[in-house]
Amino acid sequence: MKILIRNVDIIQYDEEVKIQKSVFVGIENDQIKFISKNILENFAADYEIDGKDKLMMPGFVNSHTHLPMSLLRNVGSDTSLMDWLYNHIFPREKNMSNQHIYYGSLLTLAEMIKCGTTGINDMYFLAEDVCKAAYDSGIRGSLGVSINGDVLKDDMKREIRDIHQKYNGIDGGRIQVAIAPHAMYTCSREFLIDSLHLAKELNANIHTHIAETKTEYDYSIEKYGVSPVKYFDELGYFDLKVMAAHCVHLNDEDIKILSDKKVICLHNPTSNLKLASGFSPIQKIHASGGIVTIGTDGCASNNNVNMFEEMHITSLIHKGYNMDPTLIKAHDVLKMATQNGKHIFGIDNMGDIKEGYKADLILIDMKKPHLYPNFDTVSNLVYSAQGSDVDTVIVNGKILMEKGELKTIDLEKLYFEIDKIIS
Amino acid sequence: MKILIRNVDIIQYDEEVKIQKSVFVGIENDQIKFISKNILENFAADYEIDGKDKLMMPGFVNSHTHLPMSLLRNVGSDTSLMDWLYNHIFPREKNMSNQHIYYGSLLTLAEMIKCGTTGINDMYFLAEDVCKAAYDSGIRGSLGVSINGDVLKDDMKREIRDIHQKYNGIDGGRIQVAIAPHAMYTCSREFLIDSLHLAKELNANIHTHIAETKTEYDYSIEKYGVSPVKYFDELGYFDLKVMAAHCVHLNDEDIKILSDKKVICLHNPTSNLKLASGFSPIQKIHASGGIVTIGTDGCASNNNVNMFEEMHITSLIHKGYNMDPTLIKAHDVLKMATQNGKHIFGIDNMGDIKEGYKADLILIDMKKPHLYPNFDTVSNLVYSAQGSDVDTVIVNGKILMEKGELKTIDLEKLYFEIDKIIS
Repeated sequence: MKILIRNVDIIQYDEEVKIQKSVFVGIENDQIKFISKNILENFAADYEIDGKDKLMMPGFVNSHTHLPMSLLRNVGSDTSLMDWLYNHIFPREKNMSNQHIYYGSLLTLAEMIKCGTTGINDMYFLAEDVCKAAYDSGIRGSLGVSINGDVLKDDMKREIRDIHQKYNGIDGGRIQVAIAPHAMYTCSREFLIDSLHLAKELNANIHTHIAETKTEYDYSIEKYGVSPVKYFDELGYFDLKVMAAHCVHLNDEDIKILSDKKVICLHNPTSNLKLASGFSPIQKIHASGGIVTIGTDGCASNNNVNMFEEMHITSLIHKGYNMDPTLIKAHDVLKMATQNGKHIFGIDNMGDIKEGYKADLILIDMKKPHLYPNFDTVSNLVYSAQGSDVDTVIVNGKILMEKGELKTIDLEKLYFEIDKIIS
Repeated sequence: MKILIRNVDIIQYDEEVKIQKSVFVGIENDQIKFISKNILENFAADYEIDGKDKLMMPGFVNSHTHLPMSLLRNVGSDTSLMDWLYNHIFPREKNMSNQHIYYGSLLTLAEMIKCGTTGINDMYFLAEDVCKAAYDSGIRGSLGVSINGDVLKDDMKREIRDIHQKYNGIDGGRIQVAIAPHAMYTCSREFLIDSLHLAKELNANIHTHIAETKTEYDYSIEKYGVSPVKYFDELGYFDLKVMAAHCVHLNDEDIKILSDKKVICLHNPTSNLKLASGFSPIQKIHASGGIVTIGTDGCASNNNVNMFEEMHITSLIHKGYNMDPTLIKAHDVLKMATQNGKHIFGIDNMGDIKEGYKADLILIDMKKPHLYPNFDTVSNLVYSAQGSDVDTVIVNGKILMEKGELKTIDLEKLYFEIDKIIS
């Protein structure tokens, strides 16, 4: 499939973020084939898109999600974390069937694609149905099989190996399967060690929660004498690629470990505020050369999966909390929310609008009163733009949405199916 | 003009926020005439709207704005307050003509109406052009004439009296004119006293900035020996209706004064974060019976005027900052952003969907993936909804937008005029 986008402005990342005005972009199969002021003579496009008044940018990578939780949207808002978990979330999760997981995931994916997300890093139980939904939707996915307990039992190992064999690497590597031991406080030391061995056996990434709350930090110090980050480091986790959600409660040594070991830090500002977990020191991780990405967390602690909102909140809260309006600049936030996601997938030529790069990209409709006048495109995207400004979404060279209309998900059918299972 | 809205769900405020499903709402002139399960026999509507899948709620009152600043959108983001003000904002404001003020205001109003705002509380210089734009747009406006200096000169007084005479109370009270001495640190004591006398003479409200930054608080203590709130109180300001923007740096006595004197506190969370001013203790003001409203501040320190975003951020940041996820509940935020605006206009029958109330209301399209399923409408509106979910906007009984299309502002013509003046 060859797609030609005419007369579109594009964002490119170098030291500074650059804008090129009114160019032609050709996509062939899963890659950006050319970017040029003129159309390539021998490029016979199968499909053309008019880029007038549109801005092309890399799609968002939502770096920490629990896809099926759209079915728990706005359940138990404004309650304490323990009340929320034990009285609202866990009882409902216990009754979730494969149908809930599949359709809940698809609903979240519909919302994600509508707001310009092209890649996700998920973790949930019954992950095979999450994988199926992600595969069907056309999104790029790193999908973690969520596990926890005292002993990593054989049936858990079997489930993980089965899902990994079935989904890892399919569609030219669009889907990857990770291992997701939930957290240090829900998994025993032995469980974590066995999970690590399994990850090594399968050559899989690890996705887990690290240092989300003060309670977790204090528990770690009391039980193991070290911080959560140090605990995972001592277990040997950071020899593999680890995607660490939250990273809120960190000491200076933790920040150095995260940065030195290239742990991928998954910042979830809305969730950290809503559940009153705290403010992650992402400006310190970023300054020390660490990898910061941005995620929404599950829908139930957010309660949407809109990466424009997450960028917006990331750009604001650290300025206010640290009383420094020059912290966390717009171009850094934009890279965290888009380009830095490439580390999750281990794909170098991804997260930018350049020849030879993966065609995971979105078109923004810039002809909106709230984006007008446009003196500073990057600041405009981070501080002013909305998820609803996304016009077109392309992943792996395939169009998932055009002019706001989803191409891979039938919304009416989806509402119908969800109404059946939640009634 | 009689408008009938069929089969619409409505939000009503009592102790709890209530939802009524699928009712008929009749609007006659500027008021809600009836709300009923059945259509009123003798109500011959001039115009009908289908309310299927829509939710009717009171429109937002954006309680602190500087309308023309959309023309400074995203100018000088991520710089320090003084750098931003003196190197980016003030030099550009100096060159603003009446044309800039009028068209800049109209652009902001277009964005506001699109996102469901039905009332605004503004302050800016060249306020006559702001008044004209607000009048032309059809929005409900309290428009402050911004003044500052050492001496309240006769020409300033004349300008205020002229604007007041021309615009105050027109269109059945839709437009009100306030007096807006900028702040205690930009106005001398004598200037503030003379402004107060003028406000009394005209029976006008006062709109000012109070306790925005730590610098202002320290300045007040050092120069006058009292906090900014106490300073204004001792000048006699709070005998009149005062609309106090920001209220970030407050001591316990300040909070008691603001609550006892029914000062209308205008909370601007995005601006306070972006400029690193701090976190206003709105939960304390609210708990002590004070009036808290929500505003975006000017577009240049936000950088949009989307009240859904402002509700969202209000609901999140105080939980995170005070480490309490039960603080600032969704239904309180919804009331702050809508109903509490009635205090600005001094209109009791406003800010609710009830018979005899002002027809300042909006319809939300609830058939969106990010609002689905809808287990909790109020939480859904505060945590999940987007400005782009607004379908229809009615102010004072007049339709300003229907199905996303503006009725009083020609956007293409507006872009054309703005391109001319900023080029």
